[in-house]
Amino acid sequence: MSDPQVWSSLSSESRIVVVTNKIVHSLYAPQLCRMLPVDPDFVYVGDGEEYKNLNSFMHIIDDLITMGHDRSSLLIALGGGVVGDIGGFVAATYQRGISLVQVPTTLLSQVDSSIGGKTAVNHERGKNLIGAFYQPQLVVIDTETLVSLPHRVYIEGLAEVVKYGIIRDADFFSWIEKNVDLLLKRDQTALVRAVKNSCETKSAIVESDERESNLRLILNFGHTFGHGIENSLGYGTLLHGEAVSIGMVLASDLSVRLGLMAKTVASRIEQLLQRLELPTTLPSNTSVEQVFAAMKFDKKAYGSQQRHILVREIGSVSVETGIEPGVVMQTVENRIRR
Amino acid sequence: MSDPQVWSSLSSESRIVVVTNKIVHSLYAPQLCRMLPVDPDFVYVGDGEEYKNLNSFMHIIDDLITMGHDRSSLLIALGGGVVGDIGGFVAATYQRGISLVQVPTTLLSQVDSSIGGKTAVNHERGKNLIGAFYQPQLVVIDTETLVSLPHRVYIEGLAEVVKYGIIRDADFFSWIEKNVDLLLKRDQTALVRAVKNSCETKSAIVESDERESNLRLILNFGHTFGHGIENSLGYGTLLHGEAVSIGMVLASDLSVRLGLMAKTVASRIEQLLQRLELPTTLPSNTSVEQVFAAMKFDKKAYGSQQRHILVREIGSVSVETGIEPGVVMQTVENRIRR
Repeated sequence: MSDPQVWSSLSSESRIVVVTNKIVHSLYAPQLCRMLPVDPDFVYVGDGEEYKNLNSFMHIIDDLITMGHDRSSLLIALGGGVVGDIGGFVAATYQRGISLVQVPTTLLSQVDSSIGGKTAVNHERGKNLIGAFYQPQLVVIDTETLVSLPHRVYIEGLAEVVKYGIIRDADFFSWIEKNVDLLLKRDQTALVRAVKNSCETKSAIVESDERESNLRLILNFGHTFGHGIENSLGYGTLLHGEAVSIGMVLASDLSVRLGLMAKTVASRIEQLLQRLELPTTLPSNTSVEQVFAAMKFDKKAYGSQQRHILVREIGSVSVETGIEPGVVMQTVENRIRR
Repeated sequence: MSDPQVWSSLSSESRIVVVTNKIVHSLYAPQLCRMLPVDPDFVYVGDGEEYKNLNSFMHIIDDLITMGHDRSSLLIALGGGVVGDIGGFVAATYQRGISLVQVPTTLLSQVDSSIGGKTAVNHERGKNLIGAFYQPQLVVIDTETLVSLPHRVYIEGLAEVVKYGIIRDADFFSWIEKNVDLLLKRDQTALVRAVKNSCETKSAIVESDERESNLRLILNFGHTFGHGIENSLGYGTLLHGEAVSIGMVLASDLSVRLGLMAKTVASRIEQLLQRLELPTTLPSNTSVEQVFAAMKFDKKAYGSQQRHILVREIGSVSVETGIEPGVVMQTVENRIRR
């Protein structure tokens, strides 16, 4: 964010609207404004996944119309995943699409949602059911913004960082294992390495499969269970990264149960997540049936069949279908705290 | 629609949902179903521009979720412009995009809205303010469906047919002049020629400029005024094609007033529209100020400036900015019936 060069491609004639929330605004808006060629307008979204819905979307659209923004305006999404997803969807659909710059300020959004062009809002029946693929013109990442994050919000992002190691990069996974303390301390050098590596892995996968027909599915490792958990417990009970952490453990458990992976590898995954202070078990009031039912509405379900991304070893995953519902439900059952 | 070959590229494994309205359903659903590899679900939109809004959009999304449609489903938009625009926007955004086939059943949608990938819903502050560029996999046009159209709905489509002559094809304009009687009788041979020629012109323009940065703007000839008229009189007072007809006359008047075009050419345009039973004047209760204000919300406005597509001669138009508001308002004033 502090390098004016990255903004130089933006036309000084464009009007700019920044979609953000009040907290992020108070922390980073002045710094952002100093870099911009014109004074931007600001539009605010509530802070939290529960605001990522069509209602907030409509309020932003109303504001843009009232402010007189047209197709030549630029929208900057400044904030975490909620701001990036909903701001991106507004940019994708306002007057059939305006220019978009993502400025993610959480670890989760820096390593995941800001890259790849996925935009969406939630529906009460499932996450991200309404959205579009829409690429930003620029993604500006400043790891120094991570210092201001609340502990739990910072930690959840590490779940996605670990994911990149599991699905694609055994060396990176080992590096994380060796640097747990530095990462927990938010050491800038370690963070730059972790974020850069994560972004590069994600970019490489997305570039080869933008519309998620095949390879890109592996990015959803831990997310089929994770979405089911989030949806059944109600948005906001667990943070997204926390649900993904549990989801990755469940996918590992299922991989072991199906004989695809050694139990020692699953333990290694679970231990790293625990050392990073991420959850690996489900609350005692979890309903297995509700989790399973909510998984059906995950977009990656193919026809009536669930697809699962399973692990064979660190750095290697595969997409599997036709798994017995009973086996999936038993796997969830075994992770509920008693 | 009657040729099963056109459907052969669709996978027989896909589930299909048809978005349509009750009237079109009763006329063409049985015929469509006979061509499809699987029995489709049906979702209905109200008949009329006033139903092209986010509320209808949300109802369709709800129905698709309830029916269990996923990303492998195909959406067929069977009907006129409202069905095509809203059905297309649902396809563009349901689970970040599903396959789309357009089956336009009105002249207006066959020659205009079904081609080019524009999808949208209206906002109370302006038409098509929320939407996406999203290409259908297939557009199936059967001119025999035009026989069932109410007179006024058929006639409004001729406005867009005339537009293609004015903006790009003087020979086609002359052909229309010679075939007014056949077109009014809905002669199938004349209709196939008129629709084919219109679609080819639109496709050629869209292919060279999908996202409307420059050349595609000329397709909006008559629409800057037209949208202002529709918006200020209230959606539903005039049909879209009727507003475009008056809009083309206003754009011609403005071209003459600015010395770009000879008055004789403007008369030729006006006479052809009148012979095709299209309106060329505004109702006596029209407010010039309201029309002008509503034009500001047209997406083609650039920054604070209005852009106008003006005529130089039949087959040749240009995009102009910086026209005095007073001149524009006087042009509207002179077309109000006294």
